[in-house]
Amino acid sequence: MSTGLTTTSKERLRAWLKILKTARLIEKELRERFRTELDTTLPRFDVMAALARSDAGLKMNELSTELRVSNGNVTGIVDRLVDNGLVERRAVVGDRRAQLICLTSHGAATFADHARIHEGWVDELLADLPASDVEQLMDLLDLVITKEDLS
Amino acid sequence: MSTGLTTTSKERLRAWLKILKTARLIEKELRERFRTELDTTLPRFDVMAALARSDAGLKMNELSTELRVSNGNVTGIVDRLVDNGLVERRAVVGDRRAQLICLTSHGAATFADHARIHEGWVDELLADLPASDVEQLMDLLDLVITKEDLS
Repeated sequence: MSTGLTTTSKERLRAWLKILKTARLIEKELRERFRTELDTTLPRFDVMAALARSDAGLKMNELSTELRVSNGNVTGIVDRLVDNGLVERRAVVGDRRAQLICLTSHGAATFADHARIHEGWVDELLADLPASDVEQLMDLLDLVITKEDLS
Repeated sequence: MSTGLTTTSKERLRAWLKILKTARLIEKELRERFRTELDTTLPRFDVMAALARSDAGLKMNELSTELRVSNGNVTGIVDRLVDNGLVERRAVVGDRRAQLICLTSHGAATFADHARIHEGWVDELLADLPASDVEQLMDLLDLVITKEDLS
């Protein structure tokens, strides 16, 4: 019984280390391509993606919650995106202290372009994974993160 | 046909985003537990794990290659581990400039303890993943990272 439990925990550890290795390898490759081919970064892309998913834009705290990173980190990224004319801060009617972070039209167009390129990179990097296997992989990964404390 | 390709690339993108989300959620939880329950960090644990896997210890460049992080980052982590008496630098016979980084006996015992606790955390966090599904998940993830440029 205790042997069974040990075997199971060893199997789960193998699975976790494989998930982590896979994510790190792909992410490392994508970071490198964002830097060398698009002169941007994965965090900048993630921020623009979150803004692209929102209709009216997001407040800083909403943005950092969605990205699961600290407000401070997001602020620095947003500042640079504003400097590049990709993002703008808009006042919120009825709340003087609040600001909505939104993509500019240039930012929206740039993100659409980058998102298309990013999808192509992922398609290339995961070329050996048949689309028909994706559901099965998604189902297995769903088993990994159903925990309350992780949702 | 082009629709087929698009569908496939969208499926692969879904799979990648799921892998990334899964890895980030579990890693975030483990980082938090290392900090709050063991007063250490995931990078420190990773360095000790690499040293525990080596028989004679590792040179700095071997360590940073194995961990896929910069020499500079590893140096800072090793310095702190040395300060804590968990790791020591040994001269290499016949190579005055080279040093081998090794776990001290205290470090080896501490790592064994932490590794056991870490395995328990992973077993708990992945409790919904049956050991019988692990092989299948490993096989699917193998399809994701078979690329030359990722190995």
